[in-house]
Parts: sequence; C-alpha cells; structure tokens
Amino acid sequence: MAKNLTTRENDYSRWYNDLVIQADLADNSGVRGCMIVKPYGFAIWERIQQELDSRFKETGHVNAYFPLFIPKSHFSKEADHVEGFAKECAVVTHYRLKNNPNGSGIIVDEDAKLEEELIVRPTSETIIWDTYKKWVQSYRDLPIMVNQWANVVRWEMRTRLFLRTSEFLWQEGHTAHATEKEAIFESQQMIDVYGDFVEEYMAIPVIRGTKSSNERFAGALETFCIETLMQDGKALQAGTSHFLGQNFAKAFDVKFQDKDGGMKFVWGTSWGVSTRLMGALIMTHSDDNGLVLPPKLAPIQVVIIPIYRGEKEFEELDPVALKVLKELKASGIRVKYDNRDTHKPGWKFNEYELKGVPLRIALGPRDLEKGTAEVARRDTLSKELVKLKDLSDHIKSNLSEIQVQLYAKAKKSLDANINPADDWESFESALDKGGFVSAHWDGTSETENKIKEMTKATIRCIPIENKKISGSCILTGKPSKERVLFARAY
Amino acid sequence: MAKNLTTRENDYSRWYNDLVIQADLADNSGVRGCMIVKPYGFAIWERIQQELDSRFKETGHVNAYFPLFIPKSHFSKEADHVEGFAKECAVVTHYRLKNNPNGSGIIVDEDAKLEEELIVRPTSETIIWDTYKKWVQSYRDLPIMVNQWANVVRWEMRTRLFLRTSEFLWQEGHTAHATEKEAIFESQQMIDVYGDFVEEYMAIPVIRGTKSSNERFAGALETFCIETLMQDGKALQAGTSHFLGQNFAKAFDVKFQDKDGGMKFVWGTSWGVSTRLMGALIMTHSDDNGLVLPPKLAPIQVVIIPIYRGEKEFEELDPVALKVLKELKASGIRVKYDNRDTHKPGWKFNEYELKGVPLRIALGPRDLEKGTAEVARRDTLSKELVKLKDLSDHIKSNLSEIQVQLYAKAKKSLDANINPADDWESFESALDKGGFVSAHWDGTSETENKIKEMTKATIRCIPIENKKISGSCILTGKPSKERVLFARAY
Repeated sequence: MAKNLTTRENDYSRWYNDLVIQADLADNSGVRGCMIVKPYGFAIWERIQQELDSRFKETGHVNAYFPLFIPKSHFSKEADHVEGFAKECAVVTHYRLKNNPNGSGIIVDEDAKLEEELIVRPTSETIIWDTYKKWVQSYRDLPIMVNQWANVVRWEMRTRLFLRTSEFLWQEGHTAHATEKEAIFESQQMIDVYGDFVEEYMAIPVIRGTKSSNERFAGALETFCIETLMQDGKALQAGTSHFLGQNFAKAFDVKFQDKDGGMKFVWGTSWGVSTRLMGALIMTHSDDNGLVLPPKLAPIQVVIIPIYRGEKEFEELDPVALKVLKELKASGIRVKYDNRDTHKPGWKFNEYELKGVPLRIALGPRDLEKGTAEVARRDTLSKELVKLKDLSDHIKSNLSEIQVQLYAKAKKSLDANINPADDWESFESALDKGGFVSAHWDGTSETENKIKEMTKATIRCIPIENKKISGSCILTGKPSKERVLFARAY
Repeated sequence: MAKNLTTRENDYSRWYNDLVIQADLADNSGVRGCMIVKPYGFAIWERIQQELDSRFKETGHVNAYFPLFIPKSHFSKEADHVEGFAKECAVVTHYRLKNNPNGSGIIVDEDAKLEEELIVRPTSETIIWDTYKKWVQSYRDLPIMVNQWANVVRWEMRTRLFLRTSEFLWQEGHTAHATEKEAIFESQQMIDVYGDFVEEYMAIPVIRGTKSSNERFAGALETFCIETLMQDGKALQAGTSHFLGQNFAKAFDVKFQDKDGGMKFVWGTSWGVSTRLMGALIMTHSDDNGLVLPPKLAPIQVVIIPIYRGEKEFEELDPVALKVLKELKASGIRVKYDNRDTHKPGWKFNEYELKGVPLRIALGPRDLEKGTAEVARRDTLSKELVKLKDLSDHIKSNLSEIQVQLYAKAKKSLDANINPADDWESFESALDKGGFVSAHWDGTSETENKIKEMTKATIRCIPIENKKISGSCILTGKPSKERVLFARAY
C-alpha cells in the first residue's frame, strides 16, 4: 500500500484526490477551479486524443478551430440553449491593462471597455452555427463533419480534478446534414464511436442510452449518452451525442437549396467527451496502491528495474537489461528502463505501482545466474519468474491479458450493480447500496424532479437495449412503458 | 490564373487575404480579430503540429497543460515582462450572466464580480513559473522539459489572418535547468529544431540569429530567432527561443538544493512558434493561381481527376483510376480520387490549383488507349504524359523533387535579397528595394529606434554565422563590431 494514499474504504473521495496528485496526473492551480494537467496525466490524455481522433477521421470527420470568445448576443439566439448554458461563464469585459498611476502595479484600463461583452466558450454551438450560415448554400455543401479539440470554461463553485473543473479540455463535434435521417444516424454513430473506444481502450464497460428531457442537452431534441459506474457505486456520464434537430439552424438561419430547388433548414448534431474521461479511468480500475492503467492507454507499459549492489553488479546486469529493452521496443511495446542510481529499487517499485505501469520487470544477480527475470503485474499484484528467452512473448501476452481482464472485472462489477426495484422502499435501499437501480417511471419531469429531491438520484439513461415491458412508476404508481436507470452520479 | 484572386503585383496584401479565404484556409469570425481556421487550413496546421511535436519529444520534452487564465497580480512579478506583455489583453472581470429583468436577453451579473481580475494568457511564463516553484526542490527534479500546445490572446487593433490575430494557436516550451550552460544549450537547441523543421518540412530557408535588446522577449537575457523573407521583400519572424537566465526563477522564487547542498535559483528558457507559420508558408511559395504547398505538408499530395463524357466513359476510367489510387496509397502517398459528378474537370483543376495540391493526375479516354496519364505539377505548372506502369515511381520522385526545388527557389530568392549597405543613401534605397539589408550598427537601442522611426525598418537579427568584421554605424558612424540584418517586417 502506497504511503500517504488514503484507502478507498476510508474515504473514497480523498483517495481519488490523493491519487490524482501523487501519481502526477494533475494538480490544482493558483487560479480558482482551473487545473494543471501534469506531464504524466497529459501523456494519458494524448493517447485518448490520438485514438479518438483517428476514429473520428475514419468516420469521415475533419478538424477545425473556432474562436475562444463568443459575443454575448449569440447566446440569446437559441432559447433553450441560453437557459442551459449562459449563466456560469467567464465574461471578458475589457481589453487592456495599464500601470496604476499610484505605482502599485497594474490595473484594468476603464477606457478599454468592450462594447459587447465576450463569453469564454462553455461550448461552441452558437459560434459554429453562426459560421455554418456562411458555409452552407447548397446541398453540395453538406454534410459538414467538423470536430474541434479545445479548452472550454464553465464557472464551477465546487471543483474536483478532472471531474469538474472550471476550465477543461475536450473535443466537440458539430455536424450539419441535409436530412433528419442522416443527422440521427450521425448522433447514434458517434455515441457508438465513444462507447467502443471507452470499452476497447479504456477497458470501461458502458451502458448506451438516451437521456430523459430533464438531463437532455440545452437545445437538443435527443441526447444519447454512455454511462459508466465507478467503484463507489456512483454513476459517471462519460460522453454525450446530441441530435439537435433544426433548432440551431433555425436560430442562426442556416438554410440550403436542396436538389429539388427548395430552401430547407439544415439538421444538426453535436457530440463531446472531455478530460472527465480521466476521472472515469482512475475510478474504474485503480486500487489502494495507486493507479491501474489498461495497457492500451499506458504511456509506459513495461518498466525494467535493475536490482544491484555496487557498480560491478550493475555492469553485469546492464547489458542484459538493455537487450530486453531493445527486444521489447522492437515489438512496439512502450518500455522504460529505469537505471537511475539516485533512487533505490524499493522506491522505484512503489513509484511505478503508484503510476499504474501494467508490468514491471525486475532483474537481479540471481536472475542472471538462472537466466530469468521477475515479472510483476500491476492489476493483480502477482509475480512470476520468467525465462529470459520467453520474456518478450510473455510480456506481449500479459499485456493483452491485462487489457481483457480489466474490462471483464469492471463489467462483472457493473452487471452486479444494476438492481431492479419495484416499490419505493426497495428503490431507496437499492440506491443506498450504490449502483444503478432499474425502475419504472411515469415519464414526467415532475416525477423525476421529485425523486431527485428525495434521493439525490437522477435518471442516468433509458438504455437503448431496453426491453419494452410496462409497469407502474416507482413513485406515482402511474403507468410506465419501460424501466429506466436511476443512480446517484458524479 | 484563378478567378477573383488579386495578382501579387497588383496588391500583395489583398492577394494574401483573398488566397487565405478562397483556398479555404481560414476566415474572419464575428468576434473582432479572432479567426476561424477552416478544415483545410487546420489539416496543414495539424501536419505542422505533428512533426514539431515528434521533434520536441525526440529532444526529451513532454507535453502538459496549464490554465488559460492568469491572475492579474502574477504579471507584475517580473518587471520587464509586465512592461512587454500585460497591456493589450483580454480581461475577465465577472463569472456570471443573468436574465435581464426587463426581458430583453442576458446581461452581466454585477454581483458576480471577481475579486481579482483574470487575464486570458498572452503567454504562460508567469503561471508556469508559479507552478515550477512547487515542482522543484532538488537537483533531482531538474531539468523540467515541458511543452504546451495552446491558444493565447493578445488584443490587436489591426489583424490579418494567420499573421496577426487576437487569438492564435501556438506551442510554448518552458524548461528549467540546474545550470546556465544547460539552459543556453536548450535555447540554442530549440532554435535549431525550429530552423531544421522550417527548412526541411516547410521548404522555407531561414536565417538563424539573435535579437537586439529592443526586439528581445520581455524578461529574456537573449532571444534566438529564425527569420524568413516573403516574396514581397518583407521579413517574417518564424520562431523564437529565449534564454531567460534566472529572471523568472527569481521573480517566482524557484530554488533547488544542488548536489553540493547549496540552494540555487533555477535557469530557464522558453520557445514558441504559432499559426503565424501558416502565413510564412503561404507567402513563400504561392503564386497568382493560388496556394503552393511543399509535399511534406500537403494534406493531399496527389489528386486524381477523371475526364469523361457520359456514364460509359466513366465506367471504363473508374477501375483504372481506382487502381492508381490503391497503388499510390500503398506507397504511403496522401492521394485523393475526386470522382464527384457534381463538378466538371475544369472546375476541379482550378480548385486543386487554388488549394496547392502538388500533383494532379488527369485520366481520360485517350489515356486509356495509350496506357498513359497526364501528370501536372502545381509548382511549375508543367504537364507530362506518363506511362501508367511508371506512374507510381514518377509520382514519388516528383514529390521529392518538388520539395527540394521549392526550397532551392526560396533559398535563391533569399540569398539574392540580402544586400549590404555602407552609407545611409544606399541603406535607404536597399530597404526600398525590399529584402534584408546588411549594415553596421553602433549597438545602441537609441540608434535602432531612430532608424526605425526614419525607415520603418528594424533589426531582424544578428546572424549566428556572422563574420566578425568591424565597421562604422550606418546612421551615427560610431564603431560597430559586426553587420546586422535590417528589414521591414510583418
């Protein structure tokens, strides 16, 4: 168990925070609510970015970049959107500083007040649809399949590293289509891209579903989502994809001349995932010793640590370690040889455990004699002596195995934590146990709000693969067409 | 000649602007001074990013991310820096909007005023050094070799797409070292990384040099730079790398315990290139027909255009074109087959010329008979009939050749436009002719300022490979140790 790391049982929330900081993933900054993503954390985020970006491109998308600032008046154009988004934002009001005449530093120059305030983007629908108006004239200009990697700001009162920060990094896709059918297809396609990526790469099982109108994106007709379950029984929304209908096209007057000559409004979608995924990653796999990373995302998949006393022993070990390093690198494995003499092996063991490196190879003098190495798995904490000649194959199959087993373990836990409830008492006690509660709901916002007030639980989603079996609402007893998933959530 | 594109001779500045917009590289947004980087422009920027990023990593750097906002008080900590940077900035003063009680939309909530204003980063030295204070205790924590890809904002009154925009994209490296020697090595290494990249990838010849104190980065002891020359005879600074000495370490109290046990201030560097490079790319190679792209940066290196009348001809051509497409793709060439029937071949020829695609393959019925294709080069506008069986090799060697020849052409132009001047009259007339003027200067800021006032020319750099031959200042006649390069600049 890593020193200084609170155990999960003791205080899950503090364990999370300790882990993020001690594993060098991120840190709080001097700016309220804004985080610093440290190099090790950023290396994981880069791997997430890279893989997602290539999946976006495979599905026909291109990247572009739109302004950080949005004129205040843009927000008011789509009625639901302004209600949902325009409140807790960073507002730029001035464009110049000047020396304080009293010599005490710099102050805002009141002569440099903007005519119209600029909002730091909390999301970019408005500025992008304002642009699409210029890009779209004819059906030949459609579809527009654009994605943007960007920083966004939503002023938050209570922040937590990766999970809820005032500034965060994300991607936001914004597409425009000639037909409703194409736009619905796109929003469903993208939730599948997200779901497949999160399951295959992050080894996190997801439930694909749609949101109730309460939880829907401001301005969307339908929000598709992937929901995940953390070790403490709380749900976490990992990604959303919105079918916008013609709402933004109408708000920003984006029309096109169709093949039949008629002028029609464009159909839209938007979809995004953020650095929040880092939070999901940490809280799905990690343990009281620190981070546990699925091999496909680990910046370092294997670390080689030499165990020696004195220079002579090191000189004997070093060429063997270098040979292993070279072999593994040649197989495309991300491997690090930590031969620093400033730190002891025990310190290094702890360090790489804390940082979630999937496999550790320890090489000592006795290994040299026997032609072996000790291979330790981060996920199971098990150790094994492996013949040097088999090492490369062993490592490769271990890495695949870890990826598969991390997913299987999380999937088992998810499946074991979806509990049906058919009356209010069992509903409440199921919620208290944690996990998703599958229950009937009468379909009204009013009931959902009431349940939220009473239990702090919300409808996480209406699963896409739901069986349409009717019943009666857990709260009101009114008729319900299908069960939905409730949970307390991050 | 592309329609609607102003010629360079007619109006260079308008030609540039027309080209950026018509070639779909970027566009102005509704937000003053902020540009939209369109998908085609962004695809080029992504290639620049990718290659630079891998060169940064090869030289031992890692990426991280620091907050967008900087507390106002941070700026005042480094005296020179505040003078140079803290003036024309976007200032966040409030964190909430609310519905206007009169129902007319949304207004800034005056109750949500920040205690301390936040500045949208114009550059990140201050917030990063404030962080390094926490990261550095011992010599073991050094060096820190961090880079960040980010957006920055410097409020500009006169903006031009890519060249000068209020928001722009860039990377900023920020490193911390135990010794002065290491920090100087790093700042020199990075200007070489920039120089090599710009020459090898962008096919733009550079002059490596140092800045005079007037042009030096605010807070640096030495600024290294790469300077380039545009077709209109104006210079453009393409990248800078700063040796910061211990200035920021002292301002933010960043000390470390050295091997000898003593506490010492850290030595720093910072270095950056931005979307300005896109401007340099456009203005170095392009012509009156549009963009000309070096193959290494071109998102599409080769386009295949079928020439046909009616479906039957198309059906005969299509399998041949598909075979060529497959062959070229297999060789790792970025190739596009434009088989759209919504646009005519002539329109497509113009379009890809405008967009600077290095090679165009046209395939028509007569080519089928003869087993040939017409290959057109964008840079020379020359055409050649090539046997289909030789096509793949021909394309590959053509792409390499274009890359080399674009550089050679630009290098010849640069070399021909560095003119020595030994008296004021020839200095002024050399400046009017355009290009760099190599002249003696007495080394004072005063003289440099006077020359700038009189001619609008500044010292672009003191070339690193300068011969140390003494002379007398072009303006004051005072002694000078070496010639420096003057020019009017972007």
